[in-house]
Amino acid sequence: MESSSGAFFEQGKQSIKIPVPVYIRASASVAGTKEGQGPFADLFDVVGVDDKFGCDTWEEAESTLQKEALQLAIGKAGLKNEDIRFLFAGDLLGQSIASSFGLASFQIPLLGMYGACSTCGLSLSAATIMIAGGMAQYAACVTSSHFASAEKEFRFPLGYGSQRPLSATWTVTGSGAFVVSSEKGSKDRAMITGITIGKIMDFGLKDSMNMGACMAPAACSTIYQHLVDFGRTPSDYDKIITGDLGKVGQKVLLDMMREKGMDIEKQHMDCGIEIYDESQDAHAGGSGCGCSAITLSAYILKQLEEGKWKRVLFVPTGALLSKTSFNEGQSIPGIAHGVELVSCK
Amino acid sequence: MESSSGAFFEQGKQSIKIPVPVYIRASASVAGTKEGQGPFADLFDVVGVDDKFGCDTWEEAESTLQKEALQLAIGKAGLKNEDIRFLFAGDLLGQSIASSFGLASFQIPLLGMYGACSTCGLSLSAATIMIAGGMAQYAACVTSSHFASAEKEFRFPLGYGSQRPLSATWTVTGSGAFVVSSEKGSKDRAMITGITIGKIMDFGLKDSMNMGACMAPAACSTIYQHLVDFGRTPSDYDKIITGDLGKVGQKVLLDMMREKGMDIEKQHMDCGIEIYDESQDAHAGGSGCGCSAITLSAYILKQLEEGKWKRVLFVPTGALLSKTSFNEGQSIPGIAHGVELVSCK
Repeated sequence: MESSSGAFFEQGKQSIKIPVPVYIRASASVAGTKEGQGPFADLFDVVGVDDKFGCDTWEEAESTLQKEALQLAIGKAGLKNEDIRFLFAGDLLGQSIASSFGLASFQIPLLGMYGACSTCGLSLSAATIMIAGGMAQYAACVTSSHFASAEKEFRFPLGYGSQRPLSATWTVTGSGAFVVSSEKGSKDRAMITGITIGKIMDFGLKDSMNMGACMAPAACSTIYQHLVDFGRTPSDYDKIITGDLGKVGQKVLLDMMREKGMDIEKQHMDCGIEIYDESQDAHAGGSGCGCSAITLSAYILKQLEEGKWKRVLFVPTGALLSKTSFNEGQSIPGIAHGVELVSCK
Repeated sequence: MESSSGAFFEQGKQSIKIPVPVYIRASASVAGTKEGQGPFADLFDVVGVDDKFGCDTWEEAESTLQKEALQLAIGKAGLKNEDIRFLFAGDLLGQSIASSFGLASFQIPLLGMYGACSTCGLSLSAATIMIAGGMAQYAACVTSSHFASAEKEFRFPLGYGSQRPLSATWTVTGSGAFVVSSEKGSKDRAMITGITIGKIMDFGLKDSMNMGACMAPAACSTIYQHLVDFGRTPSDYDKIITGDLGKVGQKVLLDMMREKGMDIEKQHMDCGIEIYDESQDAHAGGSGCGCSAITLSAYILKQLEEGKWKRVLFVPTGALLSKTSFNEGQSIPGIAHGVELVSCK
């Protein structure tokens, strides 16, 4: 225990270096219709023909996204449900109901996570901690978001047809699932070699139609601390990828990093900016737990798999917003969790 | 990795045996007025004089509970905030806002958890996984619930004065915080020697005024699997303690365990039944994340500390309910996470 904890400790307080890598054995992405018309259309495993996915409610549809994504990922890994020792999952809805109702049938022991749109990074980090600690051979992570269930949960029912400002992001309809393993396989998509757990950052912003700006300080804090903890510079990464800052949040992040003496403009990519193209009128970009999750599965892991990128810092960003706190005039704090992904090539 | 994972694996699929114990260095409980009039009144560290705890809203009051409980626990451990490497926290409210707003000021890297009222067991389990894996010397866990914020979130605003059936439980106003350590101390309250992560159990019940019955199958599943995984019988434990089944749920649990050939009536205790006395008119008992958390800190750990109990199975129970899924006619699934606590005496 001592020696291993020594190894784990050496990279400083907020990050954990993973001495024996954790491998992403397989992953899957299930996307909605709008995402299926975007730049990554051909890369998703499944694109729904209608966003209700055959269900009666938006929430059931989101549960179905998670169920399909996880089943696909487990199948691609060549495993059975019972081979997955533990499941790490969560979503954006109140009391994480998309996960509760989507994952019950798997009967896999579940560690429920909440990190808003940073959940993909949080669940991959928690699974990595468990596997690096030698407590499981296989674990799975799944998260999701759905445009319609999110608008209903956080803003207005779609039927109201409310206007959206240009700073608003469009919640991605989609779910990404990942099977991680303690043992190297021949077809691993990438390996996880370090994680950086984020702190809650609250700069007092209150605009739920400009969540990019609310989350940027958290992204900056986690990216900066990751680079400091591991003693690296931005150029040590092919990409530094945030989850759903969008165009407004990206500007704020790049400025804040420059103020800290680090320019990441060359490396920075934001899943929310990439997932839709201009013609789709998504305003500032995509958001939601599903945004970074399906982009990781469909696009980012593909680049690592093919060796086009060698090392990536993946930093899903979460806005810790609820309609209750918003209506009570509270600010919107942010949190971001960083996962270092390295190509197996 | 192999040998350690061997050690971790030997106790079966759903449980993890902790070969080198994780120590509960210190804990704290902050309780509301009703809890301060109950059987554990003299055992709580702080009892509020009014349930708004000096705040403008019930949600802010719940955040204050968490802030006070965590600060107290860190102080009792003789540590500073920066000594706590990672924080594991969550609550019952939509998007866990009691934690987000209560814990931001600590600036400790946060892993957000969601397990409804099982969060105390979930967060202690997740912290144990991290510490047993050698990734932190100190971690802290905190959770909370508040009667008024919970009624508003799940049922009706208090102002409506709605009637409660006798099967209903009363959400506990309180927060419990725990500091866990990889190293043995002279004043440790107890040690964690095993955990059992629960599965979602859904028997199709839909009555949010009878959550004990909704959660009992999950408690049964986790307790049964824990005993099987560790090859023990109920008599190997001084107590088998559920979180908030209340009187109705307790009956269901005891019957279900008997059907599985295990009688735990002699060992069983439910925090929800113990936290209020008959005269307090709490109907079936107490509930909420805070119920098991403050009972663990104030009462259960005291018994272990004094050596009155040698080994306890602590099983907080969660009802995976949201008002959205409830209003859409969904059932109320349950989940329960088990933590094996052993006296250091």
